[in-house]
Amino acid sequence: MLLKGLSAFPITPADAEGRVEVDALRRLVASLCAAKVDSIGLLGSTGTYAYLSRIERRRALDAAIEEAGGKAPILVGVGALRTDDAVRLAEDAKAAGAAAGLLAPVSYTPLAEEEVFQHFATVARASGLPLCIYDNPATTHFRFSPALVGRLSRLPGIIAVKSPAPEPQAVAAHLAELRGLVPDGFSLGYSGDWRSVEALIAGGDAWYSVIAGLFPRVSMAIVEAVRKGDDSGARLLNERLEPLWSLFKEFSSLRVIYASADLLGICRAEPPRPLLPLAGAARQRVADVLAALNLS
Amino acid sequence: MLLKGLSAFPITPADAEGRVEVDALRRLVASLCAAKVDSIGLLGSTGTYAYLSRIERRRALDAAIEEAGGKAPILVGVGALRTDDAVRLAEDAKAAGAAAGLLAPVSYTPLAEEEVFQHFATVARASGLPLCIYDNPATTHFRFSPALVGRLSRLPGIIAVKSPAPEPQAVAAHLAELRGLVPDGFSLGYSGDWRSVEALIAGGDAWYSVIAGLFPRVSMAIVEAVRKGDDSGARLLNERLEPLWSLFKEFSSLRVIYASADLLGICRAEPPRPLLPLAGAARQRVADVLAALNLS
Repeated sequence: MLLKGLSAFPITPADAEGRVEVDALRRLVASLCAAKVDSIGLLGSTGTYAYLSRIERRRALDAAIEEAGGKAPILVGVGALRTDDAVRLAEDAKAAGAAAGLLAPVSYTPLAEEEVFQHFATVARASGLPLCIYDNPATTHFRFSPALVGRLSRLPGIIAVKSPAPEPQAVAAHLAELRGLVPDGFSLGYSGDWRSVEALIAGGDAWYSVIAGLFPRVSMAIVEAVRKGDDSGARLLNERLEPLWSLFKEFSSLRVIYASADLLGICRAEPPRPLLPLAGAARQRVADVLAALNLS
Repeated sequence: MLLKGLSAFPITPADAEGRVEVDALRRLVASLCAAKVDSIGLLGSTGTYAYLSRIERRRALDAAIEEAGGKAPILVGVGALRTDDAVRLAEDAKAAGAAAGLLAPVSYTPLAEEEVFQHFATVARASGLPLCIYDNPATTHFRFSPALVGRLSRLPGIIAVKSPAPEPQAVAAHLAELRGLVPDGFSLGYSGDWRSVEALIAGGDAWYSVIAGLFPRVSMAIVEAVRKGDDSGARLLNERLEPLWSLFKEFSSLRVIYASADLLGICRAEPPRPLLPLAGAARQRVADVLAALNLS
């Protein structure tokens, strides 16, 4: 199974015009490889793929693949509003050597289920790139039914789904329902950092993690604890991160992780406008939490 | 007041690769001018602006402005996910001779109110193009508060708002609230074709209309009836269109108007993938309604 354990989603450092700052991105990728994450989720939502041009996305991908040098497989966001654009991005990803593509049903006009099915089928067939279904209703405003995931999972090349983690008490049932609909070996993973530890404990295959993109070691420690069957150890590590999860819920994980990278001097990190960097009291609260947690 | 009465929103005929079919677009624009609509809303949501490149949007705009030849002012969609892209589109619109820009807060990461304010302020200031605020939560997933509309209405160059029409019994209160927050002469208009007649009767300045993009005469007849104080005549004309409004609500106005243009042979009309043209029973229902209504 290609997508299992910790998939770390770094930000994509870029200037105000949307030009990727390749050196800063390479440093992030190197730190993820050093922490031995199971995969790197380049150009995810936190990696602002939706805000970057095809050329810049290719530049980011080439740099990340060269820097990773095979030490971690690269999953890369290939979502676009138009089907033909998503096909081109998936072709680029395959040509560059990405292990898989992460495909979200980006929408403007709200999409019908059959439209999403055809979109995914076309990108998978035309590109030949293995695809992870990216179910992120908060950004795409489309919610995958279990039946649609099941239908897509039987298409050649569709290998995984990244679902928003349900409430802890609901994750076992969610996993059981999906397991009944997808082929053996199809990866069922979760995002939503503050709920992911329970999703892993319940048997989720992968944690698609924002915090791991900047702080891979604490995230790997959680994944390793679950792997060893040390659920209470995993939960303890996760509880310590509660102040960060509170900020994620209040300001969005993207805005908090950008502020964190900037505060720690890891890279110049401002999200693409119209998104604004956290400022004033909000930024100070992030600084205080980071100082208290002292993460790496 | 620039934006008043009927603003007709045509589709943008384009091929499967997103190249605008200029001759077909010109024919649509000519028919709108012949019907003496008050303005043309080019590249609105129905005009698939979000799915077209900057180059194609400029090509569509140049053709529409030349075809209109000053007979109807052109309002043009200048929305984009990135603020700098929206600035460039607004600059293009000004250079091409558009009367105003229609700016939606297109989002991927959900936007905060201050982010939307800064986005609009930057586009208005940098481009010098008069702007109509495009409040369309169904596509942007951002909802303007009356306070935000009021704040934006006091910026130089922001001249109008296109709001989704509330329920008929709520529109008078909505208008009164906004009137109390915006300067004199600021245009308060509505979209949502099936609710617009009541919005006009209640005193709304403009009807931003999908049906008028294909059937301008029946739409102008409604607007003229309201202008003459013939509310019952306007309501009667609107009631006749109820079968079409039902289809709009079931399949979206965009999909129904594309199917209508195609069925009537007005132009080759397929929406950009992943959007699928209506087919089978749905398409037949549109055909039946069009045959019964015999619109022009």
